[in-house]
Formats: sequence, structure tokens, C-alpha cells
Amino acid sequence: MSAAAQDSLEALRARLAEFARERDWDQFHSPKNLAMALIAEAAELVEHFQWLTQEQSRALPPDKHREVAMELADIQIYLIRLADKLGVDLITAANTKIALNEQRYPAAKVRGDARRAEEYE
Amino acid sequence: MSAAAQDSLEALRARLAEFARERDWDQFHSPKNLAMALIAEAAELVEHFQWLTQEQSRALPPDKHREVAMELADIQIYLIRLADKLGVDLITAANTKIALNEQRYPAAKVRGDARRAEEYE
Amino acid sequence: MSAAAQDSLEALRARLAEFARERDWDQFHSPKNLAMALIAEAAELVEHFQWLTQEQSRALPPDKHREVAMELADIQIYLIRLADKLGVDLITAANTKIALNEQRYPAAKVRGDARRAEEYE
Amino acid sequence: MSAAAQDSLEALRARLAEFARERDWDQFHSPKNLAMALIAEAAELVEHFQWLTQEQSRALPPDKHREVAMELADIQIYLIRLADKLGVDLITAANTKIALNEQRYPAAKVRGDARRAEEYE
Repeated sequence: MSAAAQDSLEALRARLAEFARERDWDQFHSPKNLAMALIAEAAELVEHFQWLTQEQSRALPPDKHREVAMELADIQIYLIRLADKLGVDLITAANTKIALNEQRYPAAKVRGDARRAEEYE
Repeated sequence: MSAAAQDSLEALRARLAEFARERDWDQFHSPKNLAMALIAEAAELVEHFQWLTQEQSRALPPDKHREVAMELADIQIYLIRLADKLGVDLITAANTKIALNEQRYPAAKVRGDARRAEEYE
Repeated sequence: MSAAAQDSLEALRARLAEFARERDWDQFHSPKNLAMALIAEAAELVEHFQWLTQEQSRALPPDKHREVAMELADIQIYLIRLADKLGVDLITAANTKIALNEQRYPAAKVRGDARRAEEYE
Repeated sequence: MSAAAQDSLEALRARLAEFARERDWDQFHSPKNLAMALIAEAAELVEHFQWLTQEQSRALPPDKHREVAMELADIQIYLIRLADKLGVDLITAANTKIALNEQRYPAAKVRGDARRAEEYE
């Protein structure tokens, strides 16, 4: 993660790299494997919501909220590891993508409409 | 995202909240729906790697690398939106989870061994 | 797939094995890779539903219904390939799992309640 | 599932419909929710393979093989439920999709090459 050595994501990246190095886990952390680990964590998140109504998903009881927060953490952790292994700066990439989305979905055109991207094209 | 108003993740959070507000998309952004969107993006990431060897996944050609970086961006974007909707600070949550992992996987015990968590318990 | 040579799943298994052999794709079809391909297809399914209400998901317009049917087909295809590579009989495995679920979730106890499995235990 | 009342998939479909009815779970089984449940099961499958080499994934020890077989069962179960709710015949859909794939990927053109579909187009 390039510029922001003072940044909180950069601090996490360094902490996670050290965590893996101490355990000799870099050998397992190919981008292919990390992508699998990331989606497995994303699915644990989905599992929390699968039988809930949308309303219920907006008002989680405290114990479930804590569990969901830890799933978000797991996803963030693997995302940082994967970005680190690939040399991608997550903040830069996200800003690039948001700029693309601003062009693809002009507010005046898509207001209140969530159809999938390709349906606009 | 609590403390760090100067932080790059917080800047992204604010930019994404504004993006959704301008498009009147908050109505679609229940945690349930955002969890689905997040895993759909995670799967697009997985799709890039599914037929690659681990070695190939470590050395992506430039065009594929750019595409993968945009998938990482999509995941980061939905993760930030979801955390925002749930009032979760991603940095705090990730640090909490890493501290848990440090206890669960003492370096001396798990060095070089990537068995799944529950298999240690 | 053991017994039922006359069975429709068995016919699909044989057709897919032939499809892969003709293309020399068995080299890519490790269980690891097929699991990735399967979840990527599952995510394409999820993507169709992510912004829909539950009601909308029950009443898809015809063109979307056709697309969703093809996603179900893709999942079934990779599931058959994976079972074939692992020597698993899907019908037998599903019946075994349903019998387990009948014990885990006695109708009298769980009627109208969809909490996750572990919350009963 | 249309024609094949004698078929093993049809028998599973009927058994699962009865299972849900006895528990009053149809209310939770919207296509949207079932798609989430299916991908959560697919991710449990992925989790078994995420740190394995491709070779290891081809030679699972017996206990892991049994667990993986039960994950395949879970995916098949939710796939059948979803197809049932949407009125899709899985066998017909799979045969339709395979016929499409035979056109999209002529053996003479793609032999030994697993590039993603869109890269051919």
C-alpha cells in the first residue's frame, strides 16, 4: 500500500504480514488460496443474513452484531493480505473504481433504480 | 468508522455514502442485500483464479492484474458500505480479530501448518 | 454415481466426463478448481437476486427466469463434475444428509423457526 | 421437475418439499434466501480445499472425504429446493446448458485451454 505509511490500513497490512511470517504461512498465501479464504469468510457473513428479512438485517441483536462484525473483520483481513501479495493499493483501487461507477451510473439516470450494471449498457 | 476522520477508509466511507444518497440507493442497501453483493464480487475474484496454478496466481499478466485490482476494489467498496450500515469500525474490528487469532494460533504451535481453525480445538 | 445407470444424473455425469475428455480439460478439473468454479456460478445466481425483494424473487419475469435456470444448470454441472472426480454419489449423499437433518431438526421442535443449526445445539 | 417421476432427483425433490412443509419452513424458502443458503454451503466446500494443493484435493483422507461429500449433499439439496420453487427442471436445464457449451467451446478450438468463456468471444 503505497503512500500512506501512517494509514490504518497500512498498519493492518504490516501487522498481518508479520503474523504470517511468524507462522511460516506465506507458503499457503498464494493469491489463489487467499481468494478462496476470502470468499469462505464472505459466505459466513451471508449465512448470518440468509433467513432474515431485510428489516431484521438492519436491526441485529447485540450478540449477532458482534459476530457479524468479526466476519467483516475476517473479510477485511484477507482482502488486505491479498492486496499485499498482489501489490495492489486498496484505497487507490477503490477510488479508481468509484470514479468509474460515477461515470457508469450517472445519478440523473439511475436514481432509485438498482438494476444490474449490464442492464444499462 | 469511529475515530479517524483523517483516515483513508473514512474518506471512502463518506464518498460511498454520498454516492448512494445521490442515487437514492440506500433503500436497496440493507445489510442482507449488501452481503449478497459483496459475495458476488468475491466470486468474480475467485473466477479469475479458478483455472490457474498457484504459481500463475502469483504472477498475473498486467491486464489480468488490473482486472483483479478492480475486483478487490469492489469487495472493499461493499465491505465499507456494509460496515457503515451496521455501524462497525473496520479497523477496530480487524485489530480485535487479529488479537483473537494471535491467541488461537500461537506461532510456536502452528508454524508451517495451515489446518483449519476448528482442527486445533 | 453408483447404482442407477439408467438415472438422469448418471447420464449427465457421463456426458460431462466426455465433454471434458474431448477438450482435454481433466487436467484443470481438480476438486480444488471445481469447487472454485462451482462457487463462482453460485455467485452469479446470487447476483440475480441481490437487489430484489423476497416477493420479487418469487415472481421473476420470463427472461430473468431463463437466465436463472441457466445458472442453476451451471451449478448442477459443476456439482456433478466434482462428485464424479471425488467418487461421491450425489443421490446417496443427499439422502444421508436429509436423514441427518431429520434428526437434527425434529419437526415438533423447529416448526416455523429458521434459526441456524448451531443455535439449536 | 417434469417428466421423470421415477427419477432419483424427483424423489429427492418430493422428500425435501415434505421436509419443509412439516417444519413450516416454506415461508423462509424464497428464491432469494435459498440462493444465499446455497452459496453459504458452496463456501463450506471451498473452505475444505482452500489451503490444499491441487494434488492434495485429489486425494482426500477418508474423514475429510466424508465431510466433503456432506457439503456436496447440502449444495444438491438447496439446488433442488430452489429449482422446485422456481419451477425449473434441473436435468433439462443442465442438458440445455451443456448443448450451449458444446457450441461455445468447440473441442477443436479449446483443447487443453481453460481460458474463461468471455476470452473466446
